[in-house]
Amino acid sequence: MGYLRYQYKDLESLCNIAFQRFGFSKEDSETISDVLLLSDLFGIESHGIQRLVRYHKGIVSGMMMVNAEIQIVHETPISAVLDAQAGMGQIVGKMAMEMAIKKAKETGVGLVVARNSNHYGIAGYYARMAEQQGLLGISMTNSEAITVPTFGKIAMMGSNPIAISMPAKPYPFLLDMSTSVVTRGKLEVYNKKDEPLPIGWALDSNGKDTTNAREVLYNIQNKLGGGIVPLGGSSELFSGHKGYGLGLAVEMFTAIFSGGLTSNYTHIGGSGGTCHSFFAIDYSVFGDKKSIEDAMSKYLQELRDSGKAEGQDRIYTHGEKEIEGYKDRLDNGILVNENTLEEIKDMCNYLNLSMNDYLREM
Amino acid sequence: MGYLRYQYKDLESLCNIAFQRFGFSKEDSETISDVLLLSDLFGIESHGIQRLVRYHKGIVSGMMMVNAEIQIVHETPISAVLDAQAGMGQIVGKMAMEMAIKKAKETGVGLVVARNSNHYGIAGYYARMAEQQGLLGISMTNSEAITVPTFGKIAMMGSNPIAISMPAKPYPFLLDMSTSVVTRGKLEVYNKKDEPLPIGWALDSNGKDTTNAREVLYNIQNKLGGGIVPLGGSSELFSGHKGYGLGLAVEMFTAIFSGGLTSNYTHIGGSGGTCHSFFAIDYSVFGDKKSIEDAMSKYLQELRDSGKAEGQDRIYTHGEKEIEGYKDRLDNGILVNENTLEEIKDMCNYLNLSMNDYLREM
Repeated sequence: MGYLRYQYKDLESLCNIAFQRFGFSKEDSETISDVLLLSDLFGIESHGIQRLVRYHKGIVSGMMMVNAEIQIVHETPISAVLDAQAGMGQIVGKMAMEMAIKKAKETGVGLVVARNSNHYGIAGYYARMAEQQGLLGISMTNSEAITVPTFGKIAMMGSNPIAISMPAKPYPFLLDMSTSVVTRGKLEVYNKKDEPLPIGWALDSNGKDTTNAREVLYNIQNKLGGGIVPLGGSSELFSGHKGYGLGLAVEMFTAIFSGGLTSNYTHIGGSGGTCHSFFAIDYSVFGDKKSIEDAMSKYLQELRDSGKAEGQDRIYTHGEKEIEGYKDRLDNGILVNENTLEEIKDMCNYLNLSMNDYLREM
Repeated sequence: MGYLRYQYKDLESLCNIAFQRFGFSKEDSETISDVLLLSDLFGIESHGIQRLVRYHKGIVSGMMMVNAEIQIVHETPISAVLDAQAGMGQIVGKMAMEMAIKKAKETGVGLVVARNSNHYGIAGYYARMAEQQGLLGISMTNSEAITVPTFGKIAMMGSNPIAISMPAKPYPFLLDMSTSVVTRGKLEVYNKKDEPLPIGWALDSNGKDTTNAREVLYNIQNKLGGGIVPLGGSSELFSGHKGYGLGLAVEMFTAIFSGGLTSNYTHIGGSGGTCHSFFAIDYSVFGDKKSIEDAMSKYLQELRDSGKAEGQDRIYTHGEKEIEGYKDRLDNGILVNENTLEEIKDMCNYLNLSMNDYLREM
């Protein structure tokens, strides 16, 4: 499975034109492309342009609506509930976090939730939007059911990521973590390499530990039982019930508060139904912003400077690897998998675009 | 190590009189006792009256001040920052969550943080206060440093629990979880039984996996390196970096936002310095409360009713075990460890109380 290298700008142009050909406005196309490509710039291949094939299929099948008109179904000075009307997650996501940011600047806090949406890319994108405005940002989403509750054998929760971002120097804090032990993308990598999974990642249809990635992925897709275990593992020994509780809390913050579908009801019969949340807090409600930011920067530096375990030479804080990689990839290009290129070529054929007019290998 | 059974009311009377003898007001004594004994009623022995010995020592040493006058150092309609002035955590905790509840009822949200405090018992107590008022409640705290960041060998974070509680029927959702893989209390149990720890719970002073509970506890107390690993384990294989990130986020929500000490600076030279946070959200900001509560109850029931793994006959939602146990222990008494009874007897001698006037074995 080889990789080819392309300029960020070229990939961006191709994505923008592709989404416009699908029927999205120029602005919406730029939003979707920006979210996808930030993931690639951060080195999170699973949520970047390799998702284009799924969006291609979703748009063609009608799961992802091109002309969705987002509805504001409830609003207060500190909150809002949006109905995405089965549109793209990135579009409602950007609008929702912008609303949360505006409310936070006016009142101190903005809590916006959205229902009836689709995959929105990396949760960290939205948390980072708030961080870049000098606010604390939080975003969560549910997804297709892949995670099994402790002692269960049926996937009842999504990967259910929690992203939290807070300004700091020289790097912001940017935590972006699924509440499952790993994401489905990791299982796909093991499947492609035909390697056994580590025991403690996934369960078979009887709820027993399994190392068979292919079977787990097939069972998830066909809702045959089993799935991925919560952060902490499949039993209480390493506190799998905590990851289960966090995943459940994400369902509450997204689906329950938006009046939408919990993950066990999404992605059935060709529909999506994903729910998200977008929270922004102006931490000046706790005092002087500069002092708070300085204290955050100091603590992050102390963590990085603290003693290393034998055999380790670096302690990271969250977001550091991504931001370092971001700069490098913006200058030196993004590696794209050959399989992904084939999928992009198919999409271009469908849209009557010539891929080679946009992408030139570096 | 035997256990004796006592009536809740008897233990409550003894705690109340003991704290009054230490110099606390009747009201403050009742608050401290109520927090401690809810932990015992929930079956969380580590945070219940077995802590009395530490409070006894802390009060005598001056780490926990009896006449602390809590200061409000910053306040807005949606937020407050309190300085506990080295008082008991339970007292500032109850006051802070009451403020958060009041603000949430007035504005939709209440965000109160506290610094310069001490151990406040179970985080779930405060989250539950909001839940019992028909609000979403969240509480977090830092603590003495016990948790080592991924690739590190020095404890830089506390056990850093996150508690979240939300009304539902027949049980509320009550998640109360440390962000370390296990708490120090679990290591103490293995130490008392002289059993090896499971690999994946703790690190020695070089940052290597260890099974030696006694050594880890000694090293934590004397700040000699090593400690407990974050939720997810000591490496990235099972996503220990996620537990590390959650623990770090708790430091932000407690110490950084309150202008207090991060866990790597607390509990040094006879001082405490613990920081907490108390958040309440009136979820009517997202629409009809009854509909939201019903949706939450429905999803929790679906989780409990979902398919069980081979060999399992029950799936729990968070708080269920504790609330079932609560009713039983209120009726049938609380089991108290003989060692704890000895410590209580010492405390009673110090306070010139006769333990047997209060406690009658059932």
